[in-house]
Amino acid sequence: MNRADDLPSLALPHVARLHAYTPGLQPTEPGWTKLNTNECPYPPSPRVAEAIRREVGEGGGTLRLYPNPKSSPLRSVVAQLHGLREENVCIGNGSDDILNLLVRCFCTTEAAAGYTLPSYSLYPVLVAIQDGGSTVIEFDRTLRLPVDRIAASGARAFFLTSPNAPTGVAFSPAEIAQVLERYRGLLIVDEAYAPFARENAIPLLAKHPNLVVVRTLSKAHALAGMRVGYALAHPTVIDLLDRVRDSYNVNRLSQVAAVAALGDTDYYAGIIARVCATRDRCIAAFAAQGWFTYPSQANFIFTEPRNARGEAGPAVAKSAYDFLYARKVLVRYFPSHALTASFLRISVGTDDEMLVLQRTLEAWLKHA
Amino acid sequence: MNRADDLPSLALPHVARLHAYTPGLQPTEPGWTKLNTNECPYPPSPRVAEAIRREVGEGGGTLRLYPNPKSSPLRSVVAQLHGLREENVCIGNGSDDILNLLVRCFCTTEAAAGYTLPSYSLYPVLVAIQDGGSTVIEFDRTLRLPVDRIAASGARAFFLTSPNAPTGVAFSPAEIAQVLERYRGLLIVDEAYAPFARENAIPLLAKHPNLVVVRTLSKAHALAGMRVGYALAHPTVIDLLDRVRDSYNVNRLSQVAAVAALGDTDYYAGIIARVCATRDRCIAAFAAQGWFTYPSQANFIFTEPRNARGEAGPAVAKSAYDFLYARKVLVRYFPSHALTASFLRISVGTDDEMLVLQRTLEAWLKHA
Repeated sequence: MNRADDLPSLALPHVARLHAYTPGLQPTEPGWTKLNTNECPYPPSPRVAEAIRREVGEGGGTLRLYPNPKSSPLRSVVAQLHGLREENVCIGNGSDDILNLLVRCFCTTEAAAGYTLPSYSLYPVLVAIQDGGSTVIEFDRTLRLPVDRIAASGARAFFLTSPNAPTGVAFSPAEIAQVLERYRGLLIVDEAYAPFARENAIPLLAKHPNLVVVRTLSKAHALAGMRVGYALAHPTVIDLLDRVRDSYNVNRLSQVAAVAALGDTDYYAGIIARVCATRDRCIAAFAAQGWFTYPSQANFIFTEPRNARGEAGPAVAKSAYDFLYARKVLVRYFPSHALTASFLRISVGTDDEMLVLQRTLEAWLKHA
Repeated sequence: MNRADDLPSLALPHVARLHAYTPGLQPTEPGWTKLNTNECPYPPSPRVAEAIRREVGEGGGTLRLYPNPKSSPLRSVVAQLHGLREENVCIGNGSDDILNLLVRCFCTTEAAAGYTLPSYSLYPVLVAIQDGGSTVIEFDRTLRLPVDRIAASGARAFFLTSPNAPTGVAFSPAEIAQVLERYRGLLIVDEAYAPFARENAIPLLAKHPNLVVVRTLSKAHALAGMRVGYALAHPTVIDLLDRVRDSYNVNRLSQVAAVAALGDTDYYAGIIARVCATRDRCIAAFAAQGWFTYPSQANFIFTEPRNARGEAGPAVAKSAYDFLYARKVLVRYFPSHALTASFLRISVGTDDEMLVLQRTLEAWLKHA
């Protein structure tokens, strides 16, 4: 075969139609106030850098050897942390890896994956890659958990982000238990932001074999650059994930970095408290100026900007986004859904970064 | 749903039937002579440890940020190294990630993936995870490339390991070109071991849009612990892989480690020469004692042990494997195929490690 034009016809039809997921911008030049991908504004525990230096040693000699294929020491640490057993834990190359494995195990053309709108925009991408069916349940503006509709969705697996992205609204364990009692499929609670929340779904695992809780070290643990996430679930579900998982999905340095981070609970309690304090202060400030803002239990704020004339809406949100972008303040704007198009999602940065944001928004108000 | 017994019925039927890939043993206790997973016996370039230390810095501050989603600086280095352009390169979390992406783009129940037997035992696992069809072409003992049969296989994508695993036999660019001219599907030449070979298929990329060359840094570059591999192909194929690839599949430290390693060609030329010298000396020694051994162009040796009575065969190979294992010398034994069951695959270690191997095999000869 000598014609490049024939290549697309070799690809599976659904792959040839795919659009790639659009990750948040990762500018490489300096000068940006980066409040767009919910990274932690503080560095990871100092134990992380120490653990990496120890593993690398003088000459990087251990790097020639494959990593532990099951990330066993890390599974053990995760299990202890949550009062579970190693058989309840699967480690991923970021929680996106775990989400992908779940789609591959439970979703196909005939077996739909369910998710809410809005929620993490990766789910439909992973389902499309799998050529899977989708059952989409739309929130209304109250963002109350649609328990009945999820229970009756017929989806083989349902992805629920709690605290929700991009709104920050958390669903209580009591509400999630209601879903679990009535839903016949696998409920995946994506708790990427749960360390910033008051409650989480982990205690429900003991009673509900159809629950999977997904966590990441990219947000509260300040390790987005290392790619570590995990699933907590019944051993039968973990065993399925392990069959589909790449044997060496998590490298040596990510494994030791994660073990070190999860061991330093005091450090992380401190930075989580700081992020939550900054978040709550900023939400109060937005509310005080009359911007509708959801009560966030995550490390970001979902707020509906109003211009100087008191108007809100997609054009206003876009205007604020563009003004911020032009001044190198990067936030996230999701124009594609009615419930998100009037809002900005702003990651909680340091107090200094939030001051830059606030002053730039004040300048926008004068300008808009 | 409250019964764990119902969980397997939620999984896709082909997933519930899967057996996980069995990676080579990774013993954690010391004292093993580890010649089982074709790792490099020498450490990576000293520039790798330096680059990691530089990226981690004093406190690991950059680790809080997501990695470059396309591994762009690394793509650029890989492209330059092979005289290609960045659009010809996709970076994977190990070459296993790349192989998986290829299966996901080109293989399904209706579109078969082809591969030879024996070859890298991961291919059938990846195809089974995808619930894909398989076209298997068996080598005979000469291990001549079955050009006609591959060309006529009808497979949508064909995986060819060259140098072959576990035999070490390489196929010439001239033979591979013959396949490319007649085969209508995508030919994936898995060149994990090509840095140890005299020739490779990369020059064929210019003329053949249906060729994909896959490389890894796990073998010659002594970075199995960091998980970096890549695909070289026509931009149309790369674009397809990128649509299915996880956005942040390669972490920050793996990206800088790989850039540093690929920049130190002198260092790697040196260790590759040492590995090849040790390999060729050992092959000559096996041949001298009458053990049939394929002419390896990889960093391992595929040899057919004969016991003191001059007998070869599966029982003899198994006896040698077990004797070595009991004395903490770890090699690989593949009992499941007639062409491999009489052989051992022995990774090329340091000269000292090969001396341990040789002495242990001498002890086995007295004992067997």
